[in-house]
Parts: sequence; C-alpha cells; structure tokens
Amino acid sequence: MEKRLEISLLLDFYGPLLTEKQRDIMDLYFNNDLSLSEIAENTNASRQAIHDLIKRCDNLLMEYEEKLHLMERAITIENSKNRIINRLKNLEETLSKEENKEIINDVIKDIAENI
Amino acid sequence: MEKRLEISLLLDFYGPLLTEKQRDIMDLYFNNDLSLSEIAENTNASRQAIHDLIKRCDNLLMEYEEKLHLMERAITIENSKNRIINRLKNLEETLSKEENKEIINDVIKDIAENI
Repeated sequence: MEKRLEISLLLDFYGPLLTEKQRDIMDLYFNNDLSLSEIAENTNASRQAIHDLIKRCDNLLMEYEEKLHLMERAITIENSKNRIINRLKNLEETLSKEENKEIINDVIKDIAENI
Repeated sequence: MEKRLEISLLLDFYGPLLTEKQRDIMDLYFNNDLSLSEIAENTNASRQAIHDLIKRCDNLLMEYEEKLHLMERAITIENSKNRIINRLKNLEETLSKEENKEIINDVIKDIAENI
C-alpha cells in the first residue's frame, strides 16, 4: 500500500489515540495535502517541529497497528463481506420465488450496512 | 455488564496496548482469579502496588474503549451477524432445491467464521 494512503487509513483507526493537536496536524498533512511550511505557518510552529511531530505520529500509528491490527482486520473483513455479498447475489438470481429474492436482498443490505 | 466481565473483555481488545507486566498482572487478577495478596506474593511486589497497578490499568482500558469503541462495536456486529445468520437459516428451510440449500449453508459458515 502507498505510504501516504496507509497513514491516512491508520489515522481513521487510531486518530482518537493521538492528542487533538497531533490529529489536527496529521489531518492537514495527510488528508488536506498542506505542505510542512504551510502547516508551520498556520500553527505558529517551525517547519522542523511539524516535521518531527509528523514523523513521531507516523511511528505511533504504525506501532498501534502492529499491536491491534485494526486496519489489517478491516481489510480482511471487507474482502469477506464482498465475497459473501457476491455469492448471495448469484444465489438470488437462481431463485424462483419473488419472496425469497426479497429476503436475500434484505440480507445483502443488512450485511453491507451493519457489518 | 458486570464490571469484572467488562474488564476481562476490554483486556482481550486492548491488552496489547498495556506493558507485558501490566498485562500479566491483569490476566492473573481478572482471568485466573488470583487475589491481590497472591499476585503480590508471586511477583515480589506489595499488595498496595498491585492494587494501584490494577486500578491504573482499569482506567487505561476504559479510556481506550471511550476512544476506539472496539468492544461496543464488536457487540453490535455480533448481534448483526446472529440476526443475519438466523434469517438465512429460516430462508434455507423454505428453499426447494438442494443446491441452493448448500449455498446458503456455505454462506452461513463463511459469515460465522470470517466476519
């Protein structure tokens, strides 16, 4: 996975474990695509301080993933969900009773929305 | 949820974020049911030190849950899974073709094992 995308995803999972300041700066850099200099200017900090904070948070996020594997697990479950939904869609096409098709479609919706 | 069970479940989710020593002592107290005095004796620490460590870890685990909601989310998903599996089991009983019943049973197994 591309590093920038990976950090952006890890932020979704572990952002709440960072401080508000860390989260804001990581968000500006990885999601809003601001440069180090722009963030430094906006936050009255030096470019070096922002660089160090981002580096420290990168490491923190990767340590959290090594310990809890939330991103890895979410990717595996997403794959399982897609596989299951596809199998149910294929099954739905072979069913004859309209009533059964409706049940399958309800279940597919339930899986997609609630798991 | 009963406090002891809650902490034991939170340990499953957030144990990797504790230090090895913290995790070991929490495990002895909440999963192996040792008393404070027994743990103190086994680890060459005072009863008060063990008491304080457990209290501190209780708070840490609850802070992690407040931030990441992994236990809350796992309970919600478990309920969704059970609801979906039950609906598929009911549907399977109404199907006429053996082939379709097999597909539904495969999907139920897939959901139970991989989500």
